[in-house]
Amino acid sequence: MIPRYSRPEMVAIWTPESRFRIWFEIEAHALDAMAALGVVPVEAAQRVWEADRAAGAFDVARIDAIEAETKHDVIAFLTHVSERTGPEARFLHQGMTSSDVLDTCLAVQLSRAADLLIADVDALLAVLERRAFEHKRTPTIGRSHGIHAEPVTFGLKLAQAHAEFQRGRARLVTARAEIATCAISGAVGTFANIDPRVEAYVAEKMGLVPEPVSTQVIPRDRHAMFFAILGVIASSVERLAIEVRHLQRTEVLEAEEYFSPGQKGSSAMPHKRNPVLTENLTGLARLVRAAVTPAMENVALWHERDISHSSVERGIGPDATITLDFALARLTGVMDKLLVYPERMRKNLDRMGGLVHSQRVLLALTQAGVSREDAYRLVQRNAMKVWESDGALSLLDLLKADPEVTAALGPAEIEEKFDLDYHFRQVDTIFDRVFGRHG
Amino acid sequence: MIPRYSRPEMVAIWTPESRFRIWFEIEAHALDAMAALGVVPVEAAQRVWEADRAAGAFDVARIDAIEAETKHDVIAFLTHVSERTGPEARFLHQGMTSSDVLDTCLAVQLSRAADLLIADVDALLAVLERRAFEHKRTPTIGRSHGIHAEPVTFGLKLAQAHAEFQRGRARLVTARAEIATCAISGAVGTFANIDPRVEAYVAEKMGLVPEPVSTQVIPRDRHAMFFAILGVIASSVERLAIEVRHLQRTEVLEAEEYFSPGQKGSSAMPHKRNPVLTENLTGLARLVRAAVTPAMENVALWHERDISHSSVERGIGPDATITLDFALARLTGVMDKLLVYPERMRKNLDRMGGLVHSQRVLLALTQAGVSREDAYRLVQRNAMKVWESDGALSLLDLLKADPEVTAALGPAEIEEKFDLDYHFRQVDTIFDRVFGRHG
Amino acid sequence: MIPRYSRPEMVAIWTPESRFRIWFEIEAHALDAMAALGVVPVEAAQRVWEADRAAGAFDVARIDAIEAETKHDVIAFLTHVSERTGPEARFLHQGMTSSDVLDTCLAVQLSRAADLLIADVDALLAVLERRAFEHKRTPTIGRSHGIHAEPVTFGLKLAQAHAEFQRGRARLVTARAEIATCAISGAVGTFANIDPRVEAYVAEKMGLVPEPVSTQVIPRDRHAMFFAILGVIASSVERLAIEVRHLQRTEVLEAEEYFSPGQKGSSAMPHKRNPVLTENLTGLARLVRAAVTPAMENVALWHERDISHSSVERGIGPDATITLDFALARLTGVMDKLLVYPERMRKNLDRMGGLVHSQRVLLALTQAGVSREDAYRLVQRNAMKVWESDGALSLLDLLKADPEVTAALGPAEIEEKFDLDYHFRQVDTIFDRVFGRHG
Amino acid sequence: MIPRYSRPEMVAIWTPESRFRIWFEIEAHALDAMAALGVVPVEAAQRVWEADRAAGAFDVARIDAIEAETKHDVIAFLTHVSERTGPEARFLHQGMTSSDVLDTCLAVQLSRAADLLIADVDALLAVLERRAFEHKRTPTIGRSHGIHAEPVTFGLKLAQAHAEFQRGRARLVTARAEIATCAISGAVGTFANIDPRVEAYVAEKMGLVPEPVSTQVIPRDRHAMFFAILGVIASSVERLAIEVRHLQRTEVLEAEEYFSPGQKGSSAMPHKRNPVLTENLTGLARLVRAAVTPAMENVALWHERDISHSSVERGIGPDATITLDFALARLTGVMDKLLVYPERMRKNLDRMGGLVHSQRVLLALTQAGVSREDAYRLVQRNAMKVWESDGALSLLDLLKADPEVTAALGPAEIEEKFDLDYHFRQVDTIFDRVFGRHG
Repeated sequence: MIPRYSRPEMVAIWTPESRFRIWFEIEAHALDAMAALGVVPVEAAQRVWEADRAAGAFDVARIDAIEAETKHDVIAFLTHVSERTGPEARFLHQGMTSSDVLDTCLAVQLSRAADLLIADVDALLAVLERRAFEHKRTPTIGRSHGIHAEPVTFGLKLAQAHAEFQRGRARLVTARAEIATCAISGAVGTFANIDPRVEAYVAEKMGLVPEPVSTQVIPRDRHAMFFAILGVIASSVERLAIEVRHLQRTEVLEAEEYFSPGQKGSSAMPHKRNPVLTENLTGLARLVRAAVTPAMENVALWHERDISHSSVERGIGPDATITLDFALARLTGVMDKLLVYPERMRKNLDRMGGLVHSQRVLLALTQAGVSREDAYRLVQRNAMKVWESDGALSLLDLLKADPEVTAALGPAEIEEKFDLDYHFRQVDTIFDRVFGRHG
Repeated sequence: MIPRYSRPEMVAIWTPESRFRIWFEIEAHALDAMAALGVVPVEAAQRVWEADRAAGAFDVARIDAIEAETKHDVIAFLTHVSERTGPEARFLHQGMTSSDVLDTCLAVQLSRAADLLIADVDALLAVLERRAFEHKRTPTIGRSHGIHAEPVTFGLKLAQAHAEFQRGRARLVTARAEIATCAISGAVGTFANIDPRVEAYVAEKMGLVPEPVSTQVIPRDRHAMFFAILGVIASSVERLAIEVRHLQRTEVLEAEEYFSPGQKGSSAMPHKRNPVLTENLTGLARLVRAAVTPAMENVALWHERDISHSSVERGIGPDATITLDFALARLTGVMDKLLVYPERMRKNLDRMGGLVHSQRVLLALTQAGVSREDAYRLVQRNAMKVWESDGALSLLDLLKADPEVTAALGPAEIEEKFDLDYHFRQVDTIFDRVFGRHG
Repeated sequence: MIPRYSRPEMVAIWTPESRFRIWFEIEAHALDAMAALGVVPVEAAQRVWEADRAAGAFDVARIDAIEAETKHDVIAFLTHVSERTGPEARFLHQGMTSSDVLDTCLAVQLSRAADLLIADVDALLAVLERRAFEHKRTPTIGRSHGIHAEPVTFGLKLAQAHAEFQRGRARLVTARAEIATCAISGAVGTFANIDPRVEAYVAEKMGLVPEPVSTQVIPRDRHAMFFAILGVIASSVERLAIEVRHLQRTEVLEAEEYFSPGQKGSSAMPHKRNPVLTENLTGLARLVRAAVTPAMENVALWHERDISHSSVERGIGPDATITLDFALARLTGVMDKLLVYPERMRKNLDRMGGLVHSQRVLLALTQAGVSREDAYRLVQRNAMKVWESDGALSLLDLLKADPEVTAALGPAEIEEKFDLDYHFRQVDTIFDRVFGRHG
Repeated sequence: MIPRYSRPEMVAIWTPESRFRIWFEIEAHALDAMAALGVVPVEAAQRVWEADRAAGAFDVARIDAIEAETKHDVIAFLTHVSERTGPEARFLHQGMTSSDVLDTCLAVQLSRAADLLIADVDALLAVLERRAFEHKRTPTIGRSHGIHAEPVTFGLKLAQAHAEFQRGRARLVTARAEIATCAISGAVGTFANIDPRVEAYVAEKMGLVPEPVSTQVIPRDRHAMFFAILGVIASSVERLAIEVRHLQRTEVLEAEEYFSPGQKGSSAMPHKRNPVLTENLTGLARLVRAAVTPAMENVALWHERDISHSSVERGIGPDATITLDFALARLTGVMDKLLVYPERMRKNLDRMGGLVHSQRVLLALTQAGVSREDAYRLVQRNAMKVWESDGALSLLDLLKADPEVTAALGPAEIEEKFDLDYHFRQVDTIFDRVFGRHG
């Protein structure tokens, strides 16, 4: 967890206080369920809740001190609960094993983290939708291989990002479902000393579903899937961030991160306005992805469990969720305030002397009966001249002066192929697909 | 693709012949759709199909030769189709771009690969279910940290694996849906020169759905998700493989890979029977997982596309699917023929002098009014003696001789805590959860 | 950085105080060099050092507050230095760029981290050497595939680990050399506004060498190599940790992590003594390795630099070094106090009925003129009987009763092949190779 | 191994024929050593070499057929050697274990692969040096964050790449030394049945050094280091490839991959000239890096060995070396034939209205007594006007018209700060550092 790349709501999920609070709820709900089954006195369960209300927040330092002796975190916690509750606390945790508490707690924490991430994506989607409609008809050049291809609109670029984050949202919902399970099944998952109805009760109270079969621990393929999904979403963040970085390049400059008054781009070069937020997002994406492989390596625990996953999760649990939360929020801010320069987009679009229309001419030649190979050759020989002139020559002019071309197409036919709006006839169709509306 | 870790059906998906066949179908179906829309002559579309039927398989070497000159694979393919079709071929690919063919083809290949993997998992699930019921009541020791914990049954271990691969199956269905999209949207995804209805028609014919918004290419977050899921399933393969490897250790030997007549375990040591198949699976899991990060790095293509993803996918596309297919089939074979030794399981279970029952005694003491801390101390001091005797002493005997223990529990009460069947009372419940039945 | 897996000396390298102190030294040494070159007044350089001595530790909160406005960390720092120094501070940083300070600082931090890691490995090597000699002649079974193979000594196992960490140490020295470079070369590395002699001076003062050619930043292939080496060493940690975990398994129990009084192995099962430290190390190894791929993804910065590496390094810089430092120290502690059980090793070694000697018999038969194929068959048929008896039968007895065997070898010859010491004749040779001595 | 990304010399290292030839040499040299020690008849050793010379190439299909039965590759090979040699073959492999052959063979293969890679880097270095000197004084804009910073020369960019691949070369030499070891130490590495002098002899004959302590296998930290180094070099390939991709962008177009006659950039857009080779290299870098984590996961083999590493190495051994060899050669070709456009570089450099000189003015103001903060403000306010004019205004003109500026600096002083050559005064120094010469 890097403080400067953290937001308080996500950080709060991972504090010791938060963890102990969840542990307590799991234990206390389990005790209620045991009391209802007649396994423990109802009064003990009531007393545990009352003592907690009276005592308030947990004393993290005290629990740490006990753990320093026992070298076991759950025992330390229970000892502390016992200190503030009295003898009734001895009924807590009966028939349970530490992992019942730890794994169910992790499920609660990751579920809450997923909820925040889903909300983050929703905020991003709202911004992307607004700006996509704002620029639905703003022409800009589409680029493949970094080279001008054919016209698109800036709104289409944002629609693509919207569709990608819609998928990201659906994946986060899947991720949440993957890890939102509760295991209260005892030392090796047999419910030897605890009734499965306790698990069902705690699951419901904590907003989870029971794990069908656990083995002291909840199986880690679930967590691997969770972090893999975070890695995919981080990669989508990276994609949009890199788009902005490209657009802000000096020679392109079609869009720019908002540059606040007082901000300094460089200690040495006062003229600099750098896309530092999106560069930062590129790096944060690498950090989130770094959680994926360790999470997968965690799956193959030995027999009914080993504890090698634990240190990994102490790292990647907070790190990956906090970093992705921050990255999504930062990306939302960038896209919300992004400075967009339609004039510059148009200037870039036109700088190639009309080369971006070459395909339409090619198709028209083919439809006029020229073989595909010949048509390609005719267009390419004129296109190459324009290319080599760095846009000083005009493809339209050259084509109209090429007798092999004019043998197949009249001047008006050729000119018609250079119409920009032609390319945008299906923008509404695509917006309908992505947003369910186009106006 | 490593031949010895390959199966023919999956390999067939990735041959040049297979790829060219799919390309042809995409192009020819697109031509049909264009003909239906009146864009091209119906006769041209018909001729293309007829010429293909007449010509049969594609001449891969010829296409390669053309590509060596043009340095463009789709143009080389179309040139070859033109050679075997005649002038009508010029109508093919109109308004399309290479990626329309390549990406839709990859979607078909990955979908078919997913279908095979789903079938693989189904076969594995069937074997796991059969063997889980076979050993539903076979007692064996549950181990956490590699140390004896409490009794489970071997069937429960297999039920856990079954539940994990049920999740794997569901994830593969998700993976298939993620990548089963078709893009026929032209050079930058605007449908500038092709009607969206062509895309819809080809999608349906090829068993796909249209990509809502493409940008010359289908967005690579889809493929990242696909390969991430393969990585998670490979990790589950690794988990079960490592379980078998542990069980086959000389000192444990509770189960063993089938050892065929004529097989030699070691060139130097004739007595060896090694778990080489599951060790191999452990390595194969690493190979499949190796595809995950490159697939995620592929997401952030520049602008409307760059082609950096292509070489990665030429590698991981076949490699990860072929390897996982092989691994799942090998694991199914291992589990199908696994030699299981219930007597040895029982012998191991008993070797700890009854220590595995310590928790039940602990709970009984607590319920008899002893404080949790005291109960823990009482059990531990006797348990440690048994531990240090390496199972020569009996925990039951020691407890019955410990006055602090017998002050709380009578001999019959203590003995009752050493009943093995007690641990298996919920096996039916768990089987119901996993298999929807317990008998 | 996970507090429970951190040690103070390594943490200290990465505090804001430490970073600002290094920044100051770089700037102030650079100013001295500029003063010596006559570029700035000597008095200014002197004043900067004096003011710092007078002011003491940096006010981190104040610097953070300035950065919140300027959004630039080095400018914020310089502003603060200016506040505590007076007008002479304006000569600082002349002709330099932020990265001159940041990258050189990172080089200092990583060099110091490397020094600590080298010291960690030295401590581990000392422990491994002591215990290797302690158990130089302690017989134990060597295992391939988890199956008994032939006898080794426990000292040989430790000698192998020693040799591996010797390589690790050499790699850390390489890692240190890779990143111990200084760049004071200005905005794009041309020394346009700063004399290369300033770089040379600062390099020497900070214990670095000048970077031959920098581009505002020090090239990140250096850092990629650094973190890759950390990942390899973490993998060696994992290997030795897994060896201990295997040895501590209930059925093997040839060695055990030290179990301190008061420690509780399980909240539910008082008898448990789990290898939790080495399991933890297995997880920590995954965390350290997680830094490798992001570090490699950092290499391809755009043009003369982009800042995407920065957030990655804010994470992995402290995380990977702190975690590996902790892991090495923990492993040293584990190996130092490891409980080794020679009797149990011998018992395990003997449990296979002498199968571990099968190869020597095979060789003897071959040398007595039996074909390799026949010899293998003869040994295997007797070995399989012993195997199936689970060690109840003796290979020696069976061989002496096999007429095809005795036709080639006399009883004394056969018996001689079962001599344990025979296997240890080269232990001194190996110790000489590893330790440069064998006694 | 992807055929289109493969070169024959590297592929040849990994063929079955090549592997069996190395196996044979290891076995036959070992037999010579044993004969010299009097362990086996000298005639047997001679006969083995003679029979091989007579028989010629190995019959791979025959060996495969035997392996299909024995399920053991080395036994299958030895059986085949026996078939073509006669009874003397029974002396082969005595006291050895399969891994002695397999691991030593892999060491030979990886060493040879390293030699090819070193030669590849040498070829690349030669091209980079030639072109660096060609463009030593070709001015171009240096960019940080994709934004114009200050002038550099194109030769400096190439010098940086040269320095990076010099480091890569040194790392490859390290990688080669890491894996060039020979182990002929028997079933568990004790030399129980083989004299260490055999290992020494074979090592020398095969161009290796003896492994100090092996455990049936050569320790895999060596291979992890090898593949990690390949990953770092691949990342350097990616860096230079991305530089070319950026330079070839339509709006930048300062350099271009050579575009051969007959090449088609796009099936749909005849005007396209895409940086497909460097995009391809970007993807290949991801593939090579994908080998790093599996190689590290291979380190922690169980006890004296398990075979999980084997399948991984069957994949990454050929794949990573073949891909990196191809990538280095492709990059060399790209850089050799790269079309460089100095006029365009100059045009881009000048397009910012002189903003690239802003830092020098800032420094001059400071040296003229203006406080750093004021100087920054003065330069920034003029720079922002130029920035917003998109280069239509001139920074020089504005500064000369700013009374606060002219109060500190005279017109000639200001003009002098806009001298391009000023930035290149240290180019010779840097070339000396990188190439050991500057002319």
